[in-house]
Amino acid sequence: MLEKYDFAEKCLESKNIFSGRLLHVFRDKVILPDDRETIREYIKHPGASVVIPYLNDNQVLLIHQFRYPVNRVMIELPAGKIDPGENPDTTIKRELEEETGYTSDNIINLCAIYTTVGYSDELLHLFWAYNLKPCVKKPDYDERIELFPTSIGNAMEMIYSGEITDAKSVIGLFWADKIINDRQFRKRVLK
Amino acid sequence: MLEKYDFAEKCLESKNIFSGRLLHVFRDKVILPDDRETIREYIKHPGASVVIPYLNDNQVLLIHQFRYPVNRVMIELPAGKIDPGENPDTTIKRELEEETGYTSDNIINLCAIYTTVGYSDELLHLFWAYNLKPCVKKPDYDERIELFPTSIGNAMEMIYSGEITDAKSVIGLFWADKIINDRQFRKRVLK
Repeated sequence: MLEKYDFAEKCLESKNIFSGRLLHVFRDKVILPDDRETIREYIKHPGASVVIPYLNDNQVLLIHQFRYPVNRVMIELPAGKIDPGENPDTTIKRELEEETGYTSDNIINLCAIYTTVGYSDELLHLFWAYNLKPCVKKPDYDERIELFPTSIGNAMEMIYSGEITDAKSVIGLFWADKIINDRQFRKRVLK
Repeated sequence: MLEKYDFAEKCLESKNIFSGRLLHVFRDKVILPDDRETIREYIKHPGASVVIPYLNDNQVLLIHQFRYPVNRVMIELPAGKIDPGENPDTTIKRELEEETGYTSDNIINLCAIYTTVGYSDELLHLFWAYNLKPCVKKPDYDERIELFPTSIGNAMEMIYSGEITDAKSVIGLFWADKIINDRQFRKRVLK
């Protein structure tokens, strides 16, 4: 693998060309490794956390949620944006409680994923939660969420048949399948 | 699962509040199922295609590419944005040739994935390509790409150890692992 400096593009000028309520767009003038110039346009994002809530007996807790940008009800793992100054693990404990009505003191970080490197710096932190305990569910005022507990076998089948299509949830479920069905792998990540 | 109309948010007014060279941001006033109003801000994206180039003997062809928004060299599957009027399968044949210098007449669609339902309508089409044949490599003038052929076993290990962190590539490699190592599944999807 070539080192970063063989590929790296240096910023000549960075400009915040749009800021909405949620989205912040930047346009940078950059210099390529061969000294030519180009433009890079991208979103700065605070990052997000997503969790696999494990319910025992090979069951995971998914949710149904309407997503306006794609105009459909998606099947997803619980997730949410990191608030200013928040740690990813605080985010996920909060979102798990708000969206599912469960809490846990056993939440383990599995990995971090860049969602869309072409035009965003969003980093998504994936967690595994077990020993779930009921608490009060309190979704945001403009979120409608319905719980959908299911077996990992059924969830994987729903990926292969095209019923689960949300990227972060697909990645989380592949990890869940490996953790649940591969004893050695489970020992390694849940140590 | 509740039907879409139990959750659906209706658009009252849609406004293109920003258009850059690459990114198009919309802000819609919407009405929630309980008749309250809220605002949804999101990106309209033309969609993209991504491919798992299979090299025989359990090897897949990954690439190294510098990604400005995250300021690092990423390990990825070849991918690219759909051009206006283009089919996803035309996109992926073109991107495979441009980025890797291989072409194929055996490209199979596996699934479609929404990359970031919270703020984008981007739909990503995943393909499996085999019987690869060398052709002329011609990356875009501002793309620097290095080929990284590796075994599926090593690629999966790089996901688990946090070296492969690009969402579309992680999803593609989980599918590749299943296709390569599960004979029955392979029969089902490559029929």
